[in-house]
Amino acid sequence: MNRQIYLDANAWCPPLPQAKEAILKALDIVGNPSSPHRFGRQARAMMDASRLQCAEVTGFSEQEVYFTSGVSESSRWVIDALDNLGRSLNRRLTVVTSALEHPSMRKRLAQATELDIYFISISKSGVLELPDALSQADALLLSGAHNETGLIWPWEAILSKVKPDCIVYMDAAQSFSRISLPLERVDALSLSGQKIGGIAGAGLLNLRNNALKLQPPWPGPGQEKGVRPGTEPFVAIHALAAAISQIHSTRTAYQHIEGIKDQVEAHLSGLFDDLDILLQEQQRLPNTTAITFPSVDGSALRMKLDRLGLAVGFGSACSGLAPEPSPGLLALGLTEQEAQSTVRISLPPTLSEADFNEICHRFDQL
Amino acid sequence: MNRQIYLDANAWCPPLPQAKEAILKALDIVGNPSSPHRFGRQARAMMDASRLQCAEVTGFSEQEVYFTSGVSESSRWVIDALDNLGRSLNRRLTVVTSALEHPSMRKRLAQATELDIYFISISKSGVLELPDALSQADALLLSGAHNETGLIWPWEAILSKVKPDCIVYMDAAQSFSRISLPLERVDALSLSGQKIGGIAGAGLLNLRNNALKLQPPWPGPGQEKGVRPGTEPFVAIHALAAAISQIHSTRTAYQHIEGIKDQVEAHLSGLFDDLDILLQEQQRLPNTTAITFPSVDGSALRMKLDRLGLAVGFGSACSGLAPEPSPGLLALGLTEQEAQSTVRISLPPTLSEADFNEICHRFDQL
Repeated sequence: MNRQIYLDANAWCPPLPQAKEAILKALDIVGNPSSPHRFGRQARAMMDASRLQCAEVTGFSEQEVYFTSGVSESSRWVIDALDNLGRSLNRRLTVVTSALEHPSMRKRLAQATELDIYFISISKSGVLELPDALSQADALLLSGAHNETGLIWPWEAILSKVKPDCIVYMDAAQSFSRISLPLERVDALSLSGQKIGGIAGAGLLNLRNNALKLQPPWPGPGQEKGVRPGTEPFVAIHALAAAISQIHSTRTAYQHIEGIKDQVEAHLSGLFDDLDILLQEQQRLPNTTAITFPSVDGSALRMKLDRLGLAVGFGSACSGLAPEPSPGLLALGLTEQEAQSTVRISLPPTLSEADFNEICHRFDQL
Repeated sequence: MNRQIYLDANAWCPPLPQAKEAILKALDIVGNPSSPHRFGRQARAMMDASRLQCAEVTGFSEQEVYFTSGVSESSRWVIDALDNLGRSLNRRLTVVTSALEHPSMRKRLAQATELDIYFISISKSGVLELPDALSQADALLLSGAHNETGLIWPWEAILSKVKPDCIVYMDAAQSFSRISLPLERVDALSLSGQKIGGIAGAGLLNLRNNALKLQPPWPGPGQEKGVRPGTEPFVAIHALAAAISQIHSTRTAYQHIEGIKDQVEAHLSGLFDDLDILLQEQQRLPNTTAITFPSVDGSALRMKLDRLGLAVGFGSACSGLAPEPSPGLLALGLTEQEAQSTVRISLPPTLSEADFNEICHRFDQL
């Protein structure tokens, strides 16, 4: 059987050695960071150090950094809080998002009762449409980049249209470890440990400026200054902090991988006349490409790639087991069949030239 | 400076060696359990194995076990879902709980909009009062045992009053690792990894029978069959499963510690005429005792114990930094001053006879 080649970094990345070290160290911490005694104070001091690292790297202050279980929870927090804000103001809020958002954002927004939702859209040929409502938006909820195609949203252009008091929330799950982001105008920022070299179970929700209008929607004990109840997942938190402190070298590694991505795309374009590299002309993440094979049946494509030992993604990983076509790809204007026959290749930063040759060799057999 | 003695096991317990091993192994897993390729299938197989272990030990089936971030999230899930159920049935639901519940239950319940809430109460002299509403309750939400006094609720007596279709939810955070629990009639069960020898960041929400009336209140991607969105915190999940598989030896260790707890109580009773061991005549957890020192000022008591190197709890750890008296203790009928002067001693299972002698020696200097 072929050695499996892992090409699904947007679903999962290996923890960094620094994160593993931090985990081992965290396992020796005695005490709950909320306890009033000396053990508690030591555990708290380590939490404060991790919070400071996260603050420095994201450009927020320590007081603006809160730990959650990850982006799914952080996005729910923001949307719950917006729904509550609309209710307390007794008016419907105008919210702008995109049709390409992760299900953690999209599905919670679909159940919001106090929000009028407008969509930024982009077609597969790259035509961006901003809704008129953007200039009146109470909140903008958008990812840094699309997890399937790697599209980097034109944040500067979008932000130039919003009101000064618009609450700007960025889900940076897929983008933070790969590119430098324009965070100055961002009021609320979320990311997940496992996407930046830590482990699943801890993430950030940073809140400042306009986001201070939002009230914590989850009542409970007083951890994280009342913003997020529940014993802090401190092993995963320390892994997150250790990983975020390596962000510059992680981003550099992803920049280097862009050349391999371009070569893979060129090789595949040479093999198949009719394939479509989605949003190829747009700014995209250096490691991500979504490729439609219109003449190949989706489920046959999955099986073939699996047999060839190429571990790629179909849709976002969280929904990877679902047989439905990706809503994000349909929103780009793909047919159901095209969406089913689209592969997400997301290269891990550790990939080598030798791996590249092997990948090409296997695709040759498709 | 004195060596610190850790007497706050209800706030935090050290992870078991088996959990640490499981963590190291989990750090080598490649892939996201929701991914459709071979790496994903391997990660999923490990999740299935951990789920099976949790099912076997709790007496639920694999299909009834869901992983969350811990009891705070699980309790919120249940109460959110009850609120939604009331809304969809267009009638107010009758919910019975106690005034001694953890803030993650108590504070979320206080914000419920569709629930009529009734309280089981117990006085500091041990008189239990069950509300008349118990026999009509749509749901019973109760801990296995009270985290501060160690009171084990008389579950059999309470359950004998409920309707067959009452949804019975047990927060077993403090009780599961210490005693055998009557789970046959429990429809929903929660526990947290860090309370049973795993690490913070993963917990259980088991759902069956009457709890199947509850709809998942958190929309998002499809992990955990749609019950709990977000990438599974699998490192903490595998630690939880490794810890739960040791539950019989953990419970045995706690049973052995009961003798030391009795000796500590006897020693302190000999030292102070007026101290009050709360609910001493009731069934209590083997490791937990809450002791009121009425003649000592609360903040002076904290400082003295800290100086003596005795790391004890005040209130639940999650609120340990708050200067307010514990609501649970006030509900027992203590005055604010008595509540402030109450210490929670919760012995870790690793405590030795030598530690006991040292503890007594230090209390002698109080």
